[in-house]
Amino acid sequence: MIYNDPELVHTLQQVLEVLGTFAFAISGIRHAAAKHFDWFGGYVCGVAVAIGGGTIRDLILGVAPFWTTDIRYLLFTGLALILTVAFRKAMKQLDNAWFVFDTLGLAFFTIAGMQKTLELGHPFWLAIVMGCMTGVAGGVIRDVILNNVPVIFHKEIYAIASIAGGFIYWALYVLGFSLPTVAISTFLVICLTRFIAVYYHITLPILHDEEEKNDEKNC
Amino acid sequence: MIYNDPELVHTLQQVLEVLGTFAFAISGIRHAAAKHFDWFGGYVCGVAVAIGGGTIRDLILGVAPFWTTDIRYLLFTGLALILTVAFRKAMKQLDNAWFVFDTLGLAFFTIAGMQKTLELGHPFWLAIVMGCMTGVAGGVIRDVILNNVPVIFHKEIYAIASIAGGFIYWALYVLGFSLPTVAISTFLVICLTRFIAVYYHITLPILHDEEEKNDEKNC
Amino acid sequence: MIYNDPELVHTLQQVLEVLGTFAFAISGIRHAAAKHFDWFGGYVCGVAVAIGGGTIRDLILGVAPFWTTDIRYLLFTGLALILTVAFRKAMKQLDNAWFVFDTLGLAFFTIAGMQKTLELGHPFWLAIVMGCMTGVAGGVIRDVILNNVPVIFHKEIYAIASIAGGFIYWALYVLGFSLPTVAISTFLVICLTRFIAVYYHITLPILHDEEEKNDEKNC
Repeated sequence: MIYNDPELVHTLQQVLEVLGTFAFAISGIRHAAAKHFDWFGGYVCGVAVAIGGGTIRDLILGVAPFWTTDIRYLLFTGLALILTVAFRKAMKQLDNAWFVFDTLGLAFFTIAGMQKTLELGHPFWLAIVMGCMTGVAGGVIRDVILNNVPVIFHKEIYAIASIAGGFIYWALYVLGFSLPTVAISTFLVICLTRFIAVYYHITLPILHDEEEKNDEKNC
Repeated sequence: MIYNDPELVHTLQQVLEVLGTFAFAISGIRHAAAKHFDWFGGYVCGVAVAIGGGTIRDLILGVAPFWTTDIRYLLFTGLALILTVAFRKAMKQLDNAWFVFDTLGLAFFTIAGMQKTLELGHPFWLAIVMGCMTGVAGGVIRDVILNNVPVIFHKEIYAIASIAGGFIYWALYVLGFSLPTVAISTFLVICLTRFIAVYYHITLPILHDEEEKNDEKNC
Repeated sequence: MIYNDPELVHTLQQVLEVLGTFAFAISGIRHAAAKHFDWFGGYVCGVAVAIGGGTIRDLILGVAPFWTTDIRYLLFTGLALILTVAFRKAMKQLDNAWFVFDTLGLAFFTIAGMQKTLELGHPFWLAIVMGCMTGVAGGVIRDVILNNVPVIFHKEIYAIASIAGGFIYWALYVLGFSLPTVAISTFLVICLTRFIAVYYHITLPILHDEEEKNDEKNC
């Protein structure tokens, strides 16, 4: 897939990655604080959320992880750590803001992951998988490090929003829309899917143990 | 290592990977159900068991993970999820069948992992390690995601069956047997080792803490 | 970066990796014993600590993991397992020795990781990150497998010693010192930082939950 304006693609991708990095780093550091990690643990946890998904994507795609050629991703996480330590009290008041930032990060990372995969010549189904992985794998790594069951596997709609966005990207691209239109639409679909799902408490069905009664209300 | 019939090798490897994928995906989804994951969580857990070991193998060997060039592995896991959700009650009656399928998957994946490693020109000791990793690493990832201590490190004979098969493969190859003979013998050794070990409750010795009394019965 | 004596660099790196491997393998096996893993589980846990960090480093740097071309790393871990099983009682008396060995391993692995990264032509900041990852990531994998919260994120100074050594390496290199001087100084800085921190109970500040009172003594 070749876009008409490779410069625009590249700039857009960089902006998306930087914004997503910052939002995700804050998320990792706050989770680490809840487990009383020290500053180094908080930093690593922030880095894991911020660059973990993209690192796995790049390893699977066989390219150098994006953060190894640009120190800014690690510096942004350091900045996120300093802000989190310095403005701890204020952080609590911003709970809704963090939810919004986290959702923006998910949308940013999904689109960045899809574009990178498509630019490398892979098919759309792999781009959707890689977009989702870019968006959610960092959070899974965070939960594994913190010794929690990954929250995206049994709570709110999160990964599904990323996948829904992926299919919209595909559909609009096939229909011949321009890249900015495709990217912005995908962005909106991911954010709206997540906001609506959380607002109306929409979740995926839960898997039931084979031993349980067949009564779906039981859980 | 070059076989006389590369077509046969390739076909055999594909069949092995598809069968193993399905058996392993079911295993992952059932474990996820026991922790009340949602459908997405169950799918990811199924995918992790089914393709996790092969993915780590391919990353270490420096080749593209096998499932990135063939959408069928992800589709099979989706099919496994649908079957598990639709036939939940029946699943319980099939407990012995799942044990058998899981063992077949272990044997399938071990051989597939070994052959891929050997085809890439690596020595036999690495093929045995990679065969074992292909067979068991997916289950370790599953247990880590589910926040369990990996079962293969303290329960039944599992990885050892894979390694025993690996040495048989090596021995028969050195003795000059044909590939079908080598593969079938390896397959039987892995399955029999596991069946016999489980039937007679044979396990590996347990490591003891340095603080414990030297009485081996104490644990 | 090209050193005057590539032979020396290579020999030094090999010695460092072998020594570090042995010290780290013992650490992994002893932690596995505390959770009553079987011999296979202990071996894998030893391998994870010994080669886990270097494997992640090599995957990120896009080179073949170091242990895939040299069976000795896996054999050393096997030897460590045999010694741990055979001399369990004696192990307990050696607690201080293991602490020393573990610190030496950290220093060895940090320097080995930095040199490999620099030899591949990467900048110093990435070498410091990779040196730290080589030294500490194996222990994180061990803790994840054992279902513990990684100890390096909330206890003693450990990773920070590695990073301090990394900056010393950088500074001395820029100042034009010879490789042996740089390596030995880095080694001493890492070991001393850790010894002093543990002796005087110096730790990093802990991150605080936003819900807690602002009283830093409260934790």
